[in-house]
Amino acid sequence: MSKLLSAGLHVLGNVTPKPIIINGTYINPELGKYHARLRTLGRSCLDIKEKYGASRDGIYFLTTESGSVYQTFCDMTTAGGGWTLVASVHENNIYGTCTYGDRWSSQQGNDRLKPEGEGTWANTVTFGTAEGSTDDDYKNPGYYDIHAQDVAVWHVPNDKVLKDWTTAAILRYHTESHFLSEHGGNLYHLFHKYPVKYGAGDCKTDMGPSSPVVYDTGDKESNKNMFGSSLRGEFESGFVTFRVFNADKSAMAMCSGVKPTGCDSQHYCIGGGGFFLEPLHCGDFTALHWTSDETKSASKDMIESAALLFYR
Amino acid sequence: MSKLLSAGLHVLGNVTPKPIIINGTYINPELGKYHARLRTLGRSCLDIKEKYGASRDGIYFLTTESGSVYQTFCDMTTAGGGWTLVASVHENNIYGTCTYGDRWSSQQGNDRLKPEGEGTWANTVTFGTAEGSTDDDYKNPGYYDIHAQDVAVWHVPNDKVLKDWTTAAILRYHTESHFLSEHGGNLYHLFHKYPVKYGAGDCKTDMGPSSPVVYDTGDKESNKNMFGSSLRGEFESGFVTFRVFNADKSAMAMCSGVKPTGCDSQHYCIGGGGFFLEPLHCGDFTALHWTSDETKSASKDMIESAALLFYR
Amino acid sequence: MSKLLSAGLHVLGNVTPKPIIINGTYINPELGKYHARLRTLGRSCLDIKEKYGASRDGIYFLTTESGSVYQTFCDMTTAGGGWTLVASVHENNIYGTCTYGDRWSSQQGNDRLKPEGEGTWANTVTFGTAEGSTDDDYKNPGYYDIHAQDVAVWHVPNDKVLKDWTTAAILRYHTESHFLSEHGGNLYHLFHKYPVKYGAGDCKTDMGPSSPVVYDTGDKESNKNMFGSSLRGEFESGFVTFRVFNADKSAMAMCSGVKPTGCDSQHYCIGGGGFFLEPLHCGDFTALHWTSDETKSASKDMIESAALLFYR
Repeated sequence: MSKLLSAGLHVLGNVTPKPIIINGTYINPELGKYHARLRTLGRSCLDIKEKYGASRDGIYFLTTESGSVYQTFCDMTTAGGGWTLVASVHENNIYGTCTYGDRWSSQQGNDRLKPEGEGTWANTVTFGTAEGSTDDDYKNPGYYDIHAQDVAVWHVPNDKVLKDWTTAAILRYHTESHFLSEHGGNLYHLFHKYPVKYGAGDCKTDMGPSSPVVYDTGDKESNKNMFGSSLRGEFESGFVTFRVFNADKSAMAMCSGVKPTGCDSQHYCIGGGGFFLEPLHCGDFTALHWTSDETKSASKDMIESAALLFYR
Repeated sequence: MSKLLSAGLHVLGNVTPKPIIINGTYINPELGKYHARLRTLGRSCLDIKEKYGASRDGIYFLTTESGSVYQTFCDMTTAGGGWTLVASVHENNIYGTCTYGDRWSSQQGNDRLKPEGEGTWANTVTFGTAEGSTDDDYKNPGYYDIHAQDVAVWHVPNDKVLKDWTTAAILRYHTESHFLSEHGGNLYHLFHKYPVKYGAGDCKTDMGPSSPVVYDTGDKESNKNMFGSSLRGEFESGFVTFRVFNADKSAMAMCSGVKPTGCDSQHYCIGGGGFFLEPLHCGDFTALHWTSDETKSASKDMIESAALLFYR
Repeated sequence: MSKLLSAGLHVLGNVTPKPIIINGTYINPELGKYHARLRTLGRSCLDIKEKYGASRDGIYFLTTESGSVYQTFCDMTTAGGGWTLVASVHENNIYGTCTYGDRWSSQQGNDRLKPEGEGTWANTVTFGTAEGSTDDDYKNPGYYDIHAQDVAVWHVPNDKVLKDWTTAAILRYHTESHFLSEHGGNLYHLFHKYPVKYGAGDCKTDMGPSSPVVYDTGDKESNKNMFGSSLRGEFESGFVTFRVFNADKSAMAMCSGVKPTGCDSQHYCIGGGGFFLEPLHCGDFTALHWTSDETKSASKDMIESAALLFYR
């Protein structure tokens, strides 16, 4: 059998195809699994679930409208399933201030000349892999390609491997409000409408869209307690909020699990433009780690977890 | 139907294949498109056009000689088509001087010890994606793998999405001289012959190959006017030129649309080694932005566009 | 024929499949080669060799346990074959001290707050490509996914292209001790057990696993002579050693070809955490280049070669 198969690899211009299925069984089981995955190729995990009935969490093949094929993780079980992992925000250096690895804010240092920083929230640049998304930043073409209604966010401790994500997550929630439909169908379009840009608005008056969330791991109370005691009067938990400004007019992209009511949002919102009036705030995890007053710091668990973003 | 399909995903060692085509129609249309794309797999877009008659612009599958499979954009319509997108030069920080993101010059700061910088023009390192190539640097295996005769260059405004590239481009041109044939068949080989290295030559006497171009968007005059008034006597438009030196013996990789006749090439040529005698010149877009004398600056449109490189 | 094939690309919802094999011959030979490669899809090159009899060195398709598909180079000939290229350590800037490109130590500068640096040796982050692995760092999912017994290391001069690797290598060796089996089956698990972290141990007393090697290119003597005369009493050649500390408690990941007997390991071991008591030691190639005393420097050949890591 093996001789027969390898023969194909030695032929160049003239390849005689070998049988890969005998009596209905793949002679290469890995290839069988590959073909089974490929057979459900779709534009999103929801597509795959609805059209082809796939029901297991795992890695699937997706394609953009233009035909770029990629792989990512689908959550096929939570709240009906059909969730596509499109991005993760991972802090590789909590002490860095817009240094290498801060792809969701800026890798050029805190710089007034770069008020939008990397521009990652509103561009088509992609990086990382699904399997590596708890150890590094991740963004796939689904981020800009998929038309979705809702988001889910999972906070998964750094280094956890894919098969342990669901159980290891310290916080998981999703929206059911279909709020993305009003903003172009995904975060790429939402952030074109609400730029993550220093000086483009003011605290409280220029907050972007906010949606209530349903918790899948944790609840309003545990979510609230992930932030220091001085911060708990600064926000309402049970929401996810996009594009806010702090008291300095510095922009942040996402307040995970909360809706700001105060203006110290750098301590509980993440991502950002490339300039913060207070340079120590600049970075993917902004000022979540604030040692000068620990009551203004997020919990160690939250700081050491990646925020995984899903669409449905 | 969906139950039948998803069943395949649940079987591990023993996969019974499901029909994917019924009465000549793919039951998964995305899979049908995928297979149609795969069926034209080739070494270059010209290969795909000539052998399999593909005639639409879009994303196709290519393979290197060694068998690495990748996807990129094929322009199948301009001047007969068959153009493979192999790279883009994108300036992520016009104020940076060989900082992070300057992959076509150096990301290590201006450094006399690194006269060839990243070495990107003459190595096999790849990065980015076709769909992201107007928002970030891009280089695929075709850059070093394809044997070609001509190049085309498109200057496409940052952030434009793939389907709008052709109409949004501010400048598009291609060569018809087959000049690459004399230099190893691609830029990888051309730049081994003409290293992009500080001090390796002199202005005027050590200019690399230059070829006349045919314009597909714009013309000699509009091309000329993309550079400040003080520069227009410094070059002849209607050409593309590779590997030049300025008055300081600093090396640049490509003069897009022009052939230098003077020695201030840092204001109208891009890419480079890792050292420029004047540190402010160091970077992917060299000194195209020169605020101290605006007549020596390229137009805002050009500075805010990525240069997409094609082979045929 | 070409009209017939391209027709498939024009149909969207309803794709009529075209024949790709006629009389047992692929009408697209590149596609034939692709299918031949895909037919041997496996978890490792050893898998591919043993189950499907593939016997040629080259690029193959692999899949992780979760189903992420990737391509890498398989050495199917050395010492029985079945070796999977999983990583390469490439020094892009011998003068840099934990700067951009130092993915196997730190890209954040020498920093006491980052004792484990990037964490690359013990995480699931991947980067680079097999074909580019002599010009840039490389790490694929096999690094953490494959269960292996032995390692091989090739030192291949920078810029050498894939087809020349075997003949161009200045040093090639492999283990036969099956030492990985005692440490979780791969380096990902080994380095969880033996963290590459400043201060986590002492020279001599806390050395990680070491295995004797069999040389495929070079020998004990040529290996020894790749390091300066002052260093040759500092180690025993004919081994590969993982996770060692120098006199400063600074951690290194791999001593290629040698087992330290002294404590100046920064001159002959590579990789590391993100902090070295002596900042000049920080970087992917640590202090292999040591101009202040050339007898403590590695040979130019070794410094200008990438270290390619294989599993079997």
